[in-house]
Amino acid sequence: MSKVKVAINGYGTIGKRVADAVTMQDDMEIIGIAKTRPNYEAFVAHDKGYNVYTLADRVDDMKSAGIPAAGSIDDMIAEADVVVDCTPGGIGEKNKALYEKAGVKAIWQGGEKHELAGCSFNAEANYEEALGRDFVRVVSCNTTGLCRVIYPLDQEYGVKKVRVTLMRRSADPNDVKNGPINAIVPNPIKLPSHHGPDVKSVIPHINIASTAVKLPTTLMHLHTLNIEMEKDCSTEDVKALFAKQPRIRMIGQGIGSTAEIMELGKDMGRPRGDMWENCVWEDSVTMYEGELYFFQAIHQESDVIPENVDAIRAMTELEKDGAKSIAKTNKAMGL
Amino acid sequence: MSKVKVAINGYGTIGKRVADAVTMQDDMEIIGIAKTRPNYEAFVAHDKGYNVYTLADRVDDMKSAGIPAAGSIDDMIAEADVVVDCTPGGIGEKNKALYEKAGVKAIWQGGEKHELAGCSFNAEANYEEALGRDFVRVVSCNTTGLCRVIYPLDQEYGVKKVRVTLMRRSADPNDVKNGPINAIVPNPIKLPSHHGPDVKSVIPHINIASTAVKLPTTLMHLHTLNIEMEKDCSTEDVKALFAKQPRIRMIGQGIGSTAEIMELGKDMGRPRGDMWENCVWEDSVTMYEGELYFFQAIHQESDVIPENVDAIRAMTELEKDGAKSIAKTNKAMGL
Repeated sequence: MSKVKVAINGYGTIGKRVADAVTMQDDMEIIGIAKTRPNYEAFVAHDKGYNVYTLADRVDDMKSAGIPAAGSIDDMIAEADVVVDCTPGGIGEKNKALYEKAGVKAIWQGGEKHELAGCSFNAEANYEEALGRDFVRVVSCNTTGLCRVIYPLDQEYGVKKVRVTLMRRSADPNDVKNGPINAIVPNPIKLPSHHGPDVKSVIPHINIASTAVKLPTTLMHLHTLNIEMEKDCSTEDVKALFAKQPRIRMIGQGIGSTAEIMELGKDMGRPRGDMWENCVWEDSVTMYEGELYFFQAIHQESDVIPENVDAIRAMTELEKDGAKSIAKTNKAMGL
Repeated sequence: MSKVKVAINGYGTIGKRVADAVTMQDDMEIIGIAKTRPNYEAFVAHDKGYNVYTLADRVDDMKSAGIPAAGSIDDMIAEADVVVDCTPGGIGEKNKALYEKAGVKAIWQGGEKHELAGCSFNAEANYEEALGRDFVRVVSCNTTGLCRVIYPLDQEYGVKKVRVTLMRRSADPNDVKNGPINAIVPNPIKLPSHHGPDVKSVIPHINIASTAVKLPTTLMHLHTLNIEMEKDCSTEDVKALFAKQPRIRMIGQGIGSTAEIMELGKDMGRPRGDMWENCVWEDSVTMYEGELYFFQAIHQESDVIPENVDAIRAMTELEKDGAKSIAKTNKAMGL
């Protein structure tokens, strides 16, 4: 069987990781990546052997910068079965007409609105909903992280109410433009925030209220979760449930911060030191006065990467069973 | 009437501020401050005209460093009606025997355990409990900040349950030893944390669960509060209730972070730029699905300062009415 042809439109934090993760799979391949400027990421893409495409009027610029561009973004899209749009939030929306015209399937990221794709995706929670679809939105890193813990709890015990505080890293490690350097920024100030309710785009019946702040850190997001459940369960029940999820890592072994989790990712030899799983502190998982509390850290640069791979597999119907796709993706990535 | 004689044992972040706040009152005076080392804070204390005391075996060292020490700490205690112990957490406990021997009243800070004093104090919530007492503990900055919002809500609407996430600054602005620089640190990892329940040392019947993290910032703590109340009330009811509290400042006017609140304190001409009040973002106050949510910022270096002044007044029975003491303290400090 020929491999599914995948193109990456926008080769930044997410795009470059999706490209590498797709390359690790045996049922799909990268036919090209699109980059608007010849920065260091474009050079690395070229060195890795990816075909680099760019805007039609920048093909010559890319060549003169030292990267022999394979052609325009339109050329790339024409070759693809699926385009993974990893352009900055809001830009992806403008590309929809391109994809429709080319008759190509497209995946957007969480920076775009649910309505753009009509299907917001998390592999664990609603793989089946994406089967055969032309357009899918892989939800944001935070929403992905929330779905991964809320969905199994809801399946097992019924989730009555979720209250979550999202402590967000303000900028990615390679971002030198954003702050704050030394402040806590309620964001948004008006409550509740949109972050928690975005979970409803994947699991509509969940009752959730979220608050969010931006912090002077670049490494990971951290969530404090409070969950009321319909059925009785114990601390040990929840730990056991989380431990068997394919994309939850239970954290212990003296790890006390997001910094040490990132160090673990590097020590494990993960590409770019990525931590694709939700990192739940095992000792934090507590049923207290009948309600569940725990901390989890979310690696904003990488937790959606395996989800993008699964979304490709669902949309192209390479695999109809979500659990099987998750297992296949994880195995290929070494997760 | 002669003024109440107050001594400050430990002249660091809290001690120096209490000294200045006491000096602003017309019914009490600072008879001395105790400092173990002749650092810049000791020099400023001397320059301000405070009598500087030190450990008995360091009187000569202090003199040779350029600060003519007024005597030993024992000498200072013998002169005082009330000692405000602002030594580092855990040290204050060891001083109790000294105070008992000298027959002097003493106030400890939130770093000491409730049992040491037997009375944990917040002026708004339990002023009357401290009347005439020999020993009182002024609760920590975070507990003070929680009591100031929980107590009036409980009085007015009955507080059924409080869930709070405390996002703590890791170090004070003058602290060059502590971190983290770039990480989020769940602290403690085991849930719930002791922070919220410390509120019960002041208001025993409150049902509260707290989680806490340490952050790479020095400026203020930030609390995300979720409160369920017994009686119905609206967003506007809560805003109106908070606005009339003597030590709550409603924040708006384009202030979007803890950094801008600290800038406001400086622009207002506050001593050291201090923000003694709870800073509640007005736009964050929201009743959502029958529960209250809001953000407040707490200036860890200064919110307990007016509480220490009120504690002195209660213990010495200079004023038997808490509301009158609060008004008097606030007026003298320009709050």
